[in-house]
Amino acid sequence: MHNEKVIAAFQGERGAYSEAATVTYFGEGVQPLPRASFEAVFDAVSSSDADRGVIPVENSLAGSIHRNYDLLLRYDLTIVGEVQLRIAHHLIALPGVSLADVRRVYSHPQALAQCEQSLDKLLPHVERVPTYDTAGSVNMLREEGIRDGAAIASRRAADFYEMSVLRDDLEDDPENYTRFLILSRDAVIPDGAAKTSIVFAMDNVPGALFKSLAVFALRDIDLTKIESRPLQGKRWQYFFYIDFAGSVHETHCRNALNHLQEITSFFRILGSYPRGV
Amino acid sequence: MHNEKVIAAFQGERGAYSEAATVTYFGEGVQPLPRASFEAVFDAVSSSDADRGVIPVENSLAGSIHRNYDLLLRYDLTIVGEVQLRIAHHLIALPGVSLADVRRVYSHPQALAQCEQSLDKLLPHVERVPTYDTAGSVNMLREEGIRDGAAIASRRAADFYEMSVLRDDLEDDPENYTRFLILSRDAVIPDGAAKTSIVFAMDNVPGALFKSLAVFALRDIDLTKIESRPLQGKRWQYFFYIDFAGSVHETHCRNALNHLQEITSFFRILGSYPRGV
Repeated sequence: MHNEKVIAAFQGERGAYSEAATVTYFGEGVQPLPRASFEAVFDAVSSSDADRGVIPVENSLAGSIHRNYDLLLRYDLTIVGEVQLRIAHHLIALPGVSLADVRRVYSHPQALAQCEQSLDKLLPHVERVPTYDTAGSVNMLREEGIRDGAAIASRRAADFYEMSVLRDDLEDDPENYTRFLILSRDAVIPDGAAKTSIVFAMDNVPGALFKSLAVFALRDIDLTKIESRPLQGKRWQYFFYIDFAGSVHETHCRNALNHLQEITSFFRILGSYPRGV
Repeated sequence: MHNEKVIAAFQGERGAYSEAATVTYFGEGVQPLPRASFEAVFDAVSSSDADRGVIPVENSLAGSIHRNYDLLLRYDLTIVGEVQLRIAHHLIALPGVSLADVRRVYSHPQALAQCEQSLDKLLPHVERVPTYDTAGSVNMLREEGIRDGAAIASRRAADFYEMSVLRDDLEDDPENYTRFLILSRDAVIPDGAAKTSIVFAMDNVPGALFKSLAVFALRDIDLTKIESRPLQGKRWQYFFYIDFAGSVHETHCRNALNHLQEITSFFRILGSYPRGV
Protein backbone atom coordinates (compact mmCIF):
# COMPACT_ATOMS: atom_id res chain seq x y z
CA MET A 1 0.00 0.00 0.00
CA HIS A 2 2.77 2.40 0.95
CA ASN A 3 5.18 0.91 -1.61
CA GLU A 4 5.38 3.90 -3.97
CA LYS A 5 9.05 4.55 -4.79
CA VAL A 6 9.83 7.77 -3.00
CA ILE A 7 12.75 9.78 -1.65
CA ALA A 8 12.01 10.33 2.07
CA ALA A 9 14.03 12.73 4.23
CA PHE A 10 14.54 11.97 7.94
CA GLN A 11 16.60 13.50 10.76
CA GLY A 12 19.65 11.57 11.90
CA GLU A 13 22.30 9.24 10.54
CA ARG A 14 21.71 6.07 8.52
CA GLY A 15 20.21 3.44 10.83
CA ALA A 16 18.35 6.00 12.99
CA TYR A 17 14.95 5.14 14.47
CA SER A 18 13.49 7.72 12.06
CA GLU A 19 14.91 5.68 9.17
CA ALA A 20 13.32 2.55 10.65
CA ALA A 21 9.98 4.43 10.75
CA THR A 22 10.50 5.52 7.13
CA VAL A 23 11.01 1.93 5.98
CA THR A 24 8.11 0.67 8.11
CA TYR A 25 5.83 3.15 6.38
CA PHE A 26 7.07 3.08 2.76
CA GLY A 27 8.64 -0.40 2.58
CA GLU A 28 12.21 -1.30 1.65
CA GLY A 29 11.82 0.28 -1.81
CA VAL A 30 12.08 3.79 -0.32
CA GLN A 31 15.20 5.91 -0.77
CA PRO A 32 16.02 7.32 2.72
CA LEU A 33 17.61 10.78 2.70
CA PRO A 34 19.43 11.54 6.00
CA ARG A 35 19.43 15.17 7.17
CA ALA A 36 21.23 16.81 10.11
CA SER A 37 18.24 18.62 11.65
CA PHE A 38 14.43 18.58 11.70
CA GLU A 39 14.48 21.94 9.91
CA ALA A 40 16.60 20.40 7.13
CA VAL A 41 13.93 17.68 6.71
CA PHE A 42 11.23 20.34 6.21
CA ASP A 43 13.59 22.20 3.81
CA ALA A 44 14.27 19.02 1.79
CA VAL A 45 10.54 18.47 1.18
CA SER A 46 9.80 22.17 0.52
CA SER A 47 12.59 22.38 -2.08
CA SER A 48 11.60 19.03 -3.71
CA ASP A 49 14.94 17.43 -2.80
CA ALA A 50 12.71 14.82 -1.15
CA ASP A 51 9.18 13.64 -2.00
CA ARG A 52 8.30 13.10 1.64
CA GLY A 53 9.61 13.95 5.11
CA VAL A 54 9.31 11.70 8.19
CA ILE A 55 9.35 13.48 11.57
CA PRO A 56 8.80 12.18 15.12
CA VAL A 57 6.12 14.16 16.99
CA GLU A 58 5.51 12.15 20.13
CA ASN A 59 7.03 9.40 22.26
CA SER A 60 4.78 7.43 24.61
CA LEU A 61 7.26 7.85 27.50
CA ALA A 62 9.02 11.18 26.86
CA GLY A 63 6.12 13.18 25.38
CA SER A 64 5.87 15.52 22.40
CA ILE A 65 8.75 16.73 20.26
CA HIS A 66 7.66 20.38 20.46
CA ARG A 67 10.22 21.63 17.95
CA ASN A 68 8.38 19.76 15.21
CA TYR A 69 5.04 21.32 16.19
CA ASP A 70 6.64 24.75 15.76
CA LEU A 71 8.07 23.74 12.37
CA LEU A 72 4.68 22.39 11.17
CA LEU A 73 3.37 25.92 11.68
CA ARG A 74 6.33 27.67 10.08
CA TYR A 75 6.46 25.58 6.87
CA ASP A 76 3.69 25.21 4.31
CA LEU A 77 3.73 21.39 4.13
CA THR A 78 0.83 18.99 4.66
CA ILE A 79 0.58 15.79 6.70
CA VAL A 80 -0.27 12.78 4.49
CA GLY A 81 0.27 9.88 6.91
CA GLU A 82 1.40 8.66 10.31
CA VAL A 83 3.25 5.61 11.58
CA GLN A 84 4.02 4.24 15.03
CA LEU A 85 7.32 2.55 15.73
CA ARG A 86 8.02 0.39 18.76
CA ILE A 87 11.38 1.63 20.08
CA ALA A 88 13.46 -1.48 20.78
CA HIS A 89 16.96 -0.65 22.06
CA HIS A 90 19.73 -3.17 21.32
CA LEU A 91 23.27 -3.41 22.67
CA ILE A 92 25.53 -3.34 19.62
CA ALA A 93 29.29 -3.91 19.21
CA LEU A 94 31.93 -4.84 16.63
CA PRO A 95 31.79 -8.51 15.50
CA GLY A 96 33.83 -10.70 17.88
CA VAL A 97 33.39 -8.35 20.87
CA SER A 98 31.75 -10.07 23.87
CA LEU A 99 29.83 -8.64 26.82
CA ALA A 100 32.90 -9.12 29.07
CA ASP A 101 34.97 -6.84 26.80
CA VAL A 102 32.63 -3.86 27.23
CA ARG A 103 33.97 -1.01 29.42
CA ARG A 104 31.83 1.85 28.01
CA VAL A 105 28.30 2.11 26.61
CA TYR A 106 27.64 4.95 24.14
CA SER A 107 24.24 6.36 23.18
CA HIS A 108 21.90 9.34 23.16
CA PRO A 109 21.06 10.38 26.78
CA GLN A 110 17.38 9.45 26.31
CA ALA A 111 18.26 5.91 25.12
CA LEU A 112 20.71 5.49 28.03
CA ALA A 113 17.98 6.63 30.45
CA GLN A 114 15.42 4.24 28.94
CA CYS A 115 17.79 1.28 29.48
CA GLU A 116 19.06 2.33 32.92
CA GLN A 117 17.77 -0.63 34.95
CA SER A 118 18.71 -3.24 32.33
CA LEU A 119 22.22 -1.77 32.08
CA ASP A 120 22.59 -1.75 35.88
CA LYS A 121 21.85 -5.49 35.91
CA LEU A 122 23.80 -6.46 32.79
CA LEU A 123 26.84 -4.16 33.04
CA PRO A 124 26.84 -2.67 36.58
CA HIS A 125 30.34 -1.15 36.59
CA VAL A 126 30.49 0.06 33.02
CA GLU A 127 30.76 3.76 32.13
CA ARG A 128 27.80 5.38 30.29
CA VAL A 129 28.91 7.90 27.63
CA PRO A 130 26.22 10.29 26.30
CA THR A 131 26.50 11.01 22.56
CA TYR A 132 24.72 13.00 19.87
CA ASP A 133 22.65 10.08 18.56
CA THR A 134 22.05 6.34 18.69
CA ALA A 135 22.95 5.18 15.15
CA GLY A 136 25.89 7.64 15.12
CA SER A 137 27.32 5.84 18.17
CA VAL A 138 27.26 2.53 16.28
CA ASN A 139 29.00 4.14 13.32
CA MET A 140 31.63 5.65 15.66
CA LEU A 141 32.45 2.22 17.18
CA ARG A 142 33.01 0.88 13.67
CA GLU A 143 34.94 3.87 12.25
CA GLU A 144 37.27 4.07 15.26
CA GLY A 145 37.53 0.28 15.72
CA ILE A 146 36.53 0.54 19.41
CA ARG A 147 36.57 -3.03 20.83
CA ASP A 148 36.01 -2.23 24.53
CA GLY A 149 32.75 -0.36 23.94
CA ALA A 150 29.16 -0.97 22.86
CA ALA A 151 26.34 1.30 21.67
CA ILE A 152 22.58 1.33 22.23
CA ALA A 153 20.65 1.72 18.98
CA SER A 154 18.11 0.11 16.63
CA ARG A 155 18.48 -3.29 14.98
CA ARG A 156 18.54 -1.39 11.71
CA ALA A 157 21.72 0.42 12.81
CA ALA A 158 23.38 -2.94 13.65
CA ASP A 159 22.44 -4.31 10.22
CA PHE A 160 23.41 -1.18 8.27
CA TYR A 161 26.89 -0.90 9.82
CA GLU A 162 27.36 -4.72 9.84
CA MET A 163 27.77 -4.95 13.60
CA SER A 164 26.78 -7.60 16.17
CA VAL A 165 23.86 -7.45 18.57
CA LEU A 166 25.08 -8.43 22.08
CA ARG A 167 21.66 -8.16 23.72
CA ASP A 168 18.13 -7.59 22.37
CA ASP A 169 15.41 -5.38 23.88
CA LEU A 170 17.33 -3.58 26.59
CA GLU A 171 14.56 -0.99 27.18
CA ASP A 172 13.18 -1.01 30.75
CA ASP A 173 9.62 -0.25 29.64
CA PRO A 174 8.37 -2.14 26.55
CA GLU A 175 5.50 0.38 26.11
CA ASN A 176 7.95 2.63 24.28
CA TYR A 177 6.48 3.89 21.00
CA THR A 178 7.20 6.89 18.83
CA ARG A 179 4.61 8.38 16.49
CA PHE A 180 5.95 9.84 13.24
CA LEU A 181 4.18 12.06 10.70
CA ILE A 182 4.69 11.82 6.93
CA LEU A 183 5.01 15.25 5.27
CA SER A 184 4.38 16.17 1.64
CA ARG A 185 3.92 19.28 -0.48
CA ASP A 186 0.46 18.10 -1.61
CA ALA A 187 -2.55 16.86 0.36
CA VAL A 188 -4.07 13.37 -0.03
CA ILE A 189 -7.68 12.18 0.16
CA PRO A 190 -7.56 9.44 2.80
CA ASP A 191 -9.40 6.12 2.23
CA GLY A 192 -10.98 4.45 5.26
CA ALA A 193 -10.37 5.57 8.87
CA ALA A 194 -8.78 9.01 8.82
CA LYS A 195 -7.27 11.48 11.23
CA THR A 196 -6.98 15.26 10.85
CA SER A 197 -4.46 17.62 12.44
CA ILE A 198 -5.21 21.31 12.85
CA VAL A 199 -3.68 24.32 14.61
CA PHE A 200 -5.56 27.38 15.82
CA ALA A 201 -5.43 30.38 18.16
CA MET A 202 -8.24 32.22 19.92
CA ASP A 203 -8.72 35.57 21.58
CA ASN A 204 -7.91 35.23 25.26
CA VAL A 205 -11.47 35.22 26.67
CA PRO A 206 -12.84 32.95 29.43
CA GLY A 207 -14.12 29.65 28.08
CA ALA A 208 -12.39 30.03 24.70
CA LEU A 209 -10.76 26.58 24.72
CA PHE A 210 -13.99 25.00 25.98
CA LYS A 211 -15.91 26.51 23.06
CA SER A 212 -13.31 25.25 20.58
CA LEU A 213 -13.59 21.70 21.92
CA ALA A 214 -17.41 21.98 21.87
CA VAL A 215 -17.43 22.12 18.05
CA PHE A 216 -16.08 18.54 18.12
CA ALA A 217 -17.94 17.21 21.19
CA LEU A 218 -21.32 18.44 19.88
CA ARG A 219 -20.71 16.34 16.74
CA ASP A 220 -19.33 13.27 18.57
CA ILE A 221 -15.92 13.73 16.98
CA ASP A 222 -13.19 12.04 19.01
CA LEU A 223 -10.08 14.10 19.86
CA THR A 224 -6.91 12.00 20.04
CA LYS A 225 -4.40 14.68 21.06
CA ILE A 226 -4.13 18.29 22.19
CA GLU A 227 -0.90 20.24 22.44
CA SER A 228 -0.26 23.91 23.21
CA ARG A 229 2.67 26.07 22.12
CA PRO A 230 3.39 29.72 22.93
CA LEU A 231 1.97 32.38 20.63
CA GLN A 232 5.04 34.53 19.91
CA GLY A 233 4.59 38.16 20.91
CA LYS A 234 1.43 37.52 22.98
CA ARG A 235 2.44 36.63 26.49
CA TRP A 236 0.74 33.54 27.97
CA GLN A 237 -1.38 33.00 24.88
CA TYR A 238 -1.16 29.80 22.90
CA PHE A 239 -1.49 27.98 19.61
CA PHE A 240 -3.51 24.80 20.12
CA TYR A 241 -2.71 21.73 18.01
CA ILE A 242 -5.52 19.19 17.87
CA ASP A 243 -5.74 15.76 16.23
CA PHE A 244 -9.22 14.32 15.71
CA ALA A 245 -10.73 11.19 14.17
CA GLY A 246 -12.16 11.92 10.72
CA SER A 247 -11.26 13.72 7.51
CA VAL A 248 -11.99 17.16 6.07
CA HIS A 249 -13.82 15.26 3.31
CA GLU A 250 -16.48 14.08 5.79
CA THR A 251 -19.43 16.48 6.21
CA HIS A 252 -19.64 16.43 10.01
CA CYS A 253 -15.90 17.20 10.29
CA ARG A 254 -16.14 19.98 7.70
CA ASN A 255 -19.05 21.47 9.66
CA ALA A 256 -17.04 21.30 12.89
CA LEU A 257 -14.11 23.10 11.24
CA ASN A 258 -16.40 25.77 9.76
CA HIS A 259 -17.85 26.25 13.23
CA LEU A 260 -14.34 26.46 14.71
CA GLN A 261 -13.35 29.16 12.22
CA GLU A 262 -16.22 31.34 13.48
CA ILE A 263 -14.52 31.59 16.89
CA THR A 264 -10.77 31.42 16.16
CA SER A 265 -8.38 34.28 15.40
CA PHE A 266 -6.04 31.92 13.52
CA PHE A 267 -6.84 28.57 11.91
CA ARG A 268 -4.98 26.13 9.65
CA ILE A 269 -5.54 22.53 8.58
CA LEU A 270 -2.23 20.63 8.77
CA GLY A 271 -3.63 17.60 6.95
CA SER A 272 -6.14 14.75 6.78
CA TYR A 273 -4.51 11.34 6.43
CA PRO A 274 -5.11 7.60 6.90
CA ARG A 275 -5.01 6.67 10.58
CA GLY A 276 -1.92 4.63 11.50
CA VAL A 277 -2.16 1.27 13.27
CA MET B 1 4.89 41.05 51.54
CA HIS B 2 7.21 38.26 50.43
CA ASN B 3 10.00 39.38 52.78
CA GLU B 4 9.94 36.39 55.15
CA LYS B 5 13.53 35.22 55.72
CA VAL B 6 13.71 31.91 53.86
CA ILE B 7 16.20 29.53 52.29
CA ALA B 8 15.09 29.11 48.66
CA ALA B 9 16.58 26.46 46.36
CA PHE B 10 16.92 27.17 42.61
CA GLN B 11 18.51 25.35 39.66
CA GLY B 12 21.71 26.85 38.26
CA GLU B 13 24.77 28.75 39.41
CA ARG B 14 24.78 31.96 41.46
CA GLY B 15 23.50 34.80 39.24
CA ALA B 16 21.14 32.54 37.24
CA TYR B 17 17.79 33.90 36.02
CA SER B 18 16.18 31.53 38.55
CA GLU B 19 18.09 33.34 41.31
CA ALA B 20 16.86 36.68 39.95
CA ALA B 21 13.30 35.30 40.10
CA THR B 22 13.92 34.12 43.69
CA VAL B 23 15.03 37.60 44.78
CA THR B 24 12.18 39.27 42.86
CA TYR B 25 9.71 37.12 44.78
CA PHE B 26 11.23 36.99 48.29
CA GLY B 27 13.28 40.21 48.33
CA GLU B 28 17.03 40.58 48.97
CA GLY B 29 16.68 39.06 52.46
CA VAL B 30 16.30 35.56 50.97
CA GLN B 31 19.11 33.01 51.20
CA PRO B 32 19.45 31.52 47.68
CA LEU B 33 20.53 27.87 47.59
CA PRO B 34 21.97 26.87 44.18
CA ARG B 35 21.33 23.28 43.03
CA ALA B 36 22.66 21.41 39.97
CA SER B 37 19.33 20.06 38.67
CA PHE B 38 15.57 20.66 38.90
CA GLU B 39 15.28 17.32 40.71
CA ALA B 40 17.79 18.51 43.31
CA VAL B 41 15.59 21.59 43.91
CA PHE B 42 12.58 19.34 44.64
CA ASP B 43 14.81 17.16 46.86
CA ALA B 44 16.10 20.18 48.80
CA VAL B 45 12.54 21.27 49.69
CA SER B 46 11.33 17.71 50.43
CA SER B 47 14.24 17.09 52.82
CA SER B 48 13.88 20.53 54.51
CA ASP B 49 17.35 21.63 53.32
CA ALA B 50 15.40 24.54 51.83
CA ASP B 51 12.15 26.22 52.93
CA ARG B 52 11.08 26.90 49.36
CA GLY B 53 11.98 25.90 45.80
CA VAL B 54 11.78 28.18 42.75
CA ILE B 55 11.31 26.43 39.40
CA PRO B 56 10.68 27.82 35.88
CA VAL B 57 7.62 26.25 34.23
CA GLU B 58 7.07 28.34 31.14
CA ASN B 59 8.80 30.86 28.88
CA SER B 60 6.67 33.14 26.71
CA LEU B 61 8.83 32.41 23.62
CA ALA B 62 10.15 28.85 24.15
CA GLY B 63 7.14 27.25 25.85
CA SER B 64 6.77 24.97 28.85
CA ILE B 65 9.61 23.36 30.77
CA HIS B 66 8.00 19.90 30.67
CA ARG B 67 10.52 18.28 32.99
CA ASN B 68 9.18 20.38 35.86
CA TYR B 69 5.59 19.33 35.15
CA ASP B 70 6.70 15.69 35.46
CA LEU B 71 8.51 16.47 38.75
CA LEU B 72 5.44 18.28 40.19
CA LEU B 73 3.61 14.98 39.80
CA ARG B 74 6.41 12.82 41.19
CA TYR B 75 7.06 14.85 44.36
CA ASP B 76 4.58 15.60 47.11
CA LEU B 77 5.18 19.38 47.27
CA THR B 78 2.63 22.16 46.95
CA ILE B 79 2.68 25.38 44.91
CA VAL B 80 2.43 28.47 47.16
CA GLY B 81 3.21 31.27 44.71
CA GLU B 82 4.24 32.33 41.23
CA VAL B 83 6.41 35.10 39.80
CA GLN B 84 7.10 36.35 36.30
CA LEU B 85 10.56 37.56 35.34
CA ARG B 86 11.32 39.62 32.26
CA ILE B 87 14.35 37.91 30.68
CA ALA B 88 16.80 40.71 29.80
CA HIS B 89 20.01 39.37 28.26
CA HIS B 90 23.17 41.47 28.77
CA LEU B 91 26.60 41.19 27.14
CA ILE B 92 29.05 40.76 30.02
CA ALA B 93 32.87 40.78 30.12
CA LEU B 94 35.81 41.31 32.47
CA PRO B 95 36.28 44.94 33.59
CA GLY B 96 38.41 46.82 31.04
CA VAL B 97 37.42 44.58 28.10
CA SER B 98 35.80 46.52 25.23
CA LEU B 99 33.49 45.41 22.47
CA ALA B 100 36.40 45.45 19.98
CA ASP B 101 38.29 42.87 22.09
CA VAL B 102 35.53 40.27 21.88
CA ARG B 103 36.25 37.28 19.61
CA ARG B 104 33.85 34.76 21.20
CA VAL B 105 30.43 35.00 22.87
CA TYR B 106 29.58 32.28 25.41
CA SER B 107 26.08 31.38 26.64
CA HIS B 108 23.34 28.78 26.85
CA PRO B 109 22.09 27.88 23.31
CA GLN B 110 18.63 29.34 24.07
CA ALA B 111 20.11 32.69 25.16
CA LEU B 112 22.36 32.77 22.07
CA ALA B 113 19.31 32.05 19.88
CA GLN B 114 17.25 34.78 21.58
CA CYS B 115 19.98 37.36 20.82
CA GLU B 116 20.80 36.15 17.30
CA GLN B 117 19.80 39.27 15.36
CA SER B 118 21.31 41.71 17.89
CA LEU B 119 24.58 39.75 17.87
CA ASP B 120 24.64 39.67 14.05
CA LYS B 121 24.45 43.48 14.06
CA LEU B 122 26.75 44.14 17.01
CA LEU B 123 29.41 41.44 16.51
CA PRO B 124 28.89 39.99 13.01
CA HIS B 125 32.12 37.96 12.72
CA VAL B 126 32.39 36.73 16.27
CA GLU B 127 32.19 33.03 17.18
CA ARG B 128 29.17 31.85 19.26
CA VAL B 129 30.11 29.19 21.83
CA PRO B 130 27.22 27.20 23.38
CA THR B 131 27.68 26.45 27.09
CA TYR B 132 25.83 24.74 29.93
CA ASP B 133 24.34 27.90 31.39
CA THR B 134 24.29 31.69 31.27
CA ALA B 135 25.62 32.68 34.72
CA GLY B 136 28.14 29.82 34.54
CA SER B 137 29.60 31.41 31.38
CA VAL B 138 30.18 34.69 33.24
CA ASN B 139 31.88 32.81 36.07
CA MET B 140 34.07 30.97 33.54
CA LEU B 141 35.25 34.24 31.93
CA ARG B 142 36.28 35.46 35.38
CA GLU B 143 37.86 32.23 36.67
CA GLU B 144 39.88 31.69 33.48
CA GLY B 145 40.65 35.41 32.97
CA ILE B 146 39.33 35.32 29.39
CA ARG B 147 39.79 38.84 27.95
CA ASP B 148 38.83 38.15 24.30
CA GLY B 149 35.40 36.77 25.17
CA ALA B 150 32.03 37.89 26.52
CA ALA B 151 29.00 36.06 27.94
CA ILE B 152 25.26 36.59 27.67
CA ALA B 153 23.54 36.47 31.07
CA SER B 154 21.48 38.41 33.59
CA ARG B 155 22.47 41.71 35.20
CA ARG B 156 22.50 39.80 38.46
CA ALA B 157 25.29 37.56 37.12
CA ALA B 158 27.35 40.65 36.13
CA ASP B 159 26.90 42.12 39.63
CA PHE B 160 27.54 38.87 41.50
CA TYR B 161 30.81 38.10 39.69
CA GLU B 162 31.82 41.81 39.61
CA MET B 163 31.97 41.99 35.82
CA SER B 164 31.17 44.78 33.33
CA VAL B 165 28.07 45.06 31.15
CA LEU B 166 29.16 45.87 27.57
CA ARG B 167 25.61 46.10 26.20
CA ASP B 168 22.14 46.04 27.82
CA ASP B 169 19.03 44.27 26.54
CA LEU B 170 20.46 42.23 23.70
CA GLU B 171 17.31 40.06 23.34
CA ASP B 172 15.67 40.32 19.89
CA ASP B 173 12.14 40.09 21.28
CA PRO B 174 11.43 42.12 24.43
CA GLU B 175 8.26 40.03 25.12
CA ASN B 176 10.52 37.45 26.77
CA TYR B 177 9.13 36.40 30.15
CA THR B 178 9.58 33.29 32.27
CA ARG B 179 7.00 32.19 34.81
CA PHE B 180 8.35 30.54 37.97
CA LEU B 181 6.48 28.57 40.64
CA ILE B 182 7.29 28.71 44.35
CA LEU B 183 7.25 25.27 46.01
CA SER B 184 6.77 24.42 49.67
CA ARG B 185 6.02 21.41 51.84
CA ASP B 186 2.87 23.07 53.21
CA ALA B 187 -0.07 24.74 51.48
CA VAL B 188 -1.03 28.40 51.94
CA ILE B 189 -4.45 30.09 52.02
CA PRO B 190 -4.13 32.81 49.38
CA ASP B 191 -5.44 36.34 50.05
CA GLY B 192 -6.98 38.24 47.14
CA ALA B 193 -6.80 37.07 43.50
CA ALA B 194 -5.73 33.44 43.46
CA LYS B 195 -4.77 30.78 40.95
CA THR B 196 -5.01 27.01 41.33
CA SER B 197 -2.97 24.32 39.57
CA ILE B 198 -4.28 20.77 39.23
CA VAL B 199 -3.32 17.59 37.38
CA PHE B 200 -5.71 14.83 36.33
CA ALA B 201 -6.17 11.86 34.01
CA MET B 202 -9.34 10.44 32.47
CA ASP B 203 -10.40 7.22 30.86
CA ASN B 204 -9.83 7.44 27.13
CA VAL B 205 -13.44 7.99 25.99
CA PRO B 206 -14.68 10.43 23.32
CA GLY B 207 -15.38 13.89 24.74
CA ALA B 208 -13.47 13.25 28.00
CA LEU B 209 -11.37 16.42 27.84
CA PHE B 210 -14.43 18.46 26.81
CA LYS B 211 -16.33 17.22 29.86
CA SER B 212 -13.41 18.08 32.14
CA LEU B 213 -13.27 21.65 30.80
CA ALA B 214 -17.07 21.90 31.14
CA VAL B 215 -16.83 21.75 34.95
CA PHE B 216 -14.99 25.09 34.76
CA ALA B 217 -16.86 26.69 31.83
CA LEU B 218 -20.27 25.96 33.39
CA ARG B 219 -19.14 27.92 36.47
CA ASP B 220 -17.48 30.79 34.51
CA ILE B 221 -14.07 29.82 35.87
CA ASP B 222 -11.28 31.12 33.62
CA LEU B 223 -8.56 28.64 32.56
CA THR B 224 -5.16 30.26 32.13
CA LYS B 225 -3.14 27.26 30.95
CA ILE B 226 -3.47 23.66 29.82
CA GLU B 227 -0.57 21.27 29.35
CA SER B 228 -0.52 17.56 28.55
CA ARG B 229 2.14 14.98 29.44
CA PRO B 230 2.29 11.28 28.60
CA LEU B 231 0.68 8.83 31.02
CA GLN B 232 3.45 6.25 31.50
CA GLY B 233 2.41 2.73 30.56
CA LYS B 234 -0.78 3.83 28.73
CA ARG B 235 0.11 4.57 25.16
CA TRP B 236 -1.25 7.91 23.80
CA GLN B 237 -3.06 8.71 27.03
CA TYR B 238 -2.23 11.84 28.98
CA PHE B 239 -2.06 13.67 32.25
CA PHE B 240 -3.62 17.12 31.89
CA TYR B 241 -2.25 20.03 33.90
CA ILE B 242 -4.65 22.95 34.23
CA ASP B 243 -4.25 26.37 35.87
CA PHE B 244 -7.43 28.28 36.64
CA ALA B 245 -8.38 31.59 38.28
CA GLY B 246 -9.62 31.05 41.82
CA SER B 247 -8.75 29.13 44.96
CA VAL B 248 -9.85 25.81 46.47
CA HIS B 249 -11.20 27.95 49.34
CA GLU B 250 -13.86 29.51 47.05
CA THR B 251 -17.11 27.54 46.87
CA HIS B 252 -17.60 27.65 43.08
CA CYS B 253 -14.04 26.35 42.54
CA ARG B 254 -14.49 23.62 45.15
CA ASN B 255 -17.73 22.58 43.44
CA ALA B 256 -15.95 22.48 40.06
CA LEU B 257 -13.20 20.26 41.50
CA ASN B 258 -15.73 17.94 43.15
CA HIS B 259 -17.49 17.68 39.80
CA LEU B 260 -14.16 16.98 38.06
CA GLN B 261 -13.38 14.16 40.49
CA GLU B 262 -16.62 12.43 39.45
CA ILE B 263 -15.22 11.96 35.94
CA THR B 264 -11.45 11.58 36.40
CA SER B 265 -9.43 8.40 36.99
CA PHE B 266 -6.65 10.40 38.69
CA PHE B 267 -6.85 13.82 40.34
CA ARG B 268 -4.50 15.96 42.44
CA ILE B 269 -4.45 19.60 43.52
CA LEU B 270 -0.92 21.00 43.08
CA GLY B 271 -1.74 24.19 44.99
CA SER B 272 -3.80 27.37 45.35
CA TYR B 273 -1.66 30.51 45.53
CA PRO B 274 -1.77 34.30 45.09
CA ARG B 275 -1.81 35.22 41.42
CA GLY B 276 1.47 36.81 40.24
CA VAL B 277 1.60 40.18 38.47
